[in-house]
Amino acid sequence: MPNQSTDLGRVFQALADPTRRAVLERLSGGPAGMSELAQPFRMALPSFSQHLDVLEDCGLVRSRKEGRVRTYRISPRAMQAAEGWLSKQRSLWARRLDQFDDYVKEQNR
Amino acid sequence: MPNQSTDLGRVFQALADPTRRAVLERLSGGPAGMSELAQPFRMALPSFSQHLDVLEDCGLVRSRKEGRVRTYRISPRAMQAAEGWLSKQRSLWARRLDQFDDYVKEQNR
Repeated sequence: MPNQSTDLGRVFQALADPTRRAVLERLSGGPAGMSELAQPFRMALPSFSQHLDVLEDCGLVRSRKEGRVRTYRISPRAMQAAEGWLSKQRSLWARRLDQFDDYVKEQNR
Repeated sequence: MPNQSTDLGRVFQALADPTRRAVLERLSGGPAGMSELAQPFRMALPSFSQHLDVLEDCGLVRSRKEGRVRTYRISPRAMQAAEGWLSKQRSLWARRLDQFDDYVKEQNR
């Protein structure tokens, strides 16, 4: 990744939208074409297609044209980067709480 | 949470900004006041304060006024919700890959 901070920003930006999260939830169950992905949403295909472009541009999904049909699938690395950042913050935070706990115990001896 | 989807959207939206992520990284190491948090950024305090408001409004941080100083700290639940959503997608995706693997093995017997 040339610029991890920007990339992480684009990934979180993509995840901020409920339609895009619903698409990722669907794709977590397996690959699908655009019309199947669009089906649950009351949205014109060009607008829906923009959501897929956002997901693809930041690396959350990838697509391949097979004959006349473009198939979308999850691309796990971007999601792992986002999850990794969150889990790192959580572990730093938890470690600090542990240290605080030790400090309190030490004071109360 | 009254509306989990909206809340998750606001959390991811808050995480999309590099300044706000840097503030969370700093707060993972322990509580801090606004001027300490603002110090690494070339930004007017009112603009910086808006970033803190966004973080507080979506539940990623909380603040408390002690005397004349407002102290900010991590509020882990919102970050756990975001991490939980990502980890759920990953496990669904991994389970599907396992099933696919079993299917391929079955076919090649």
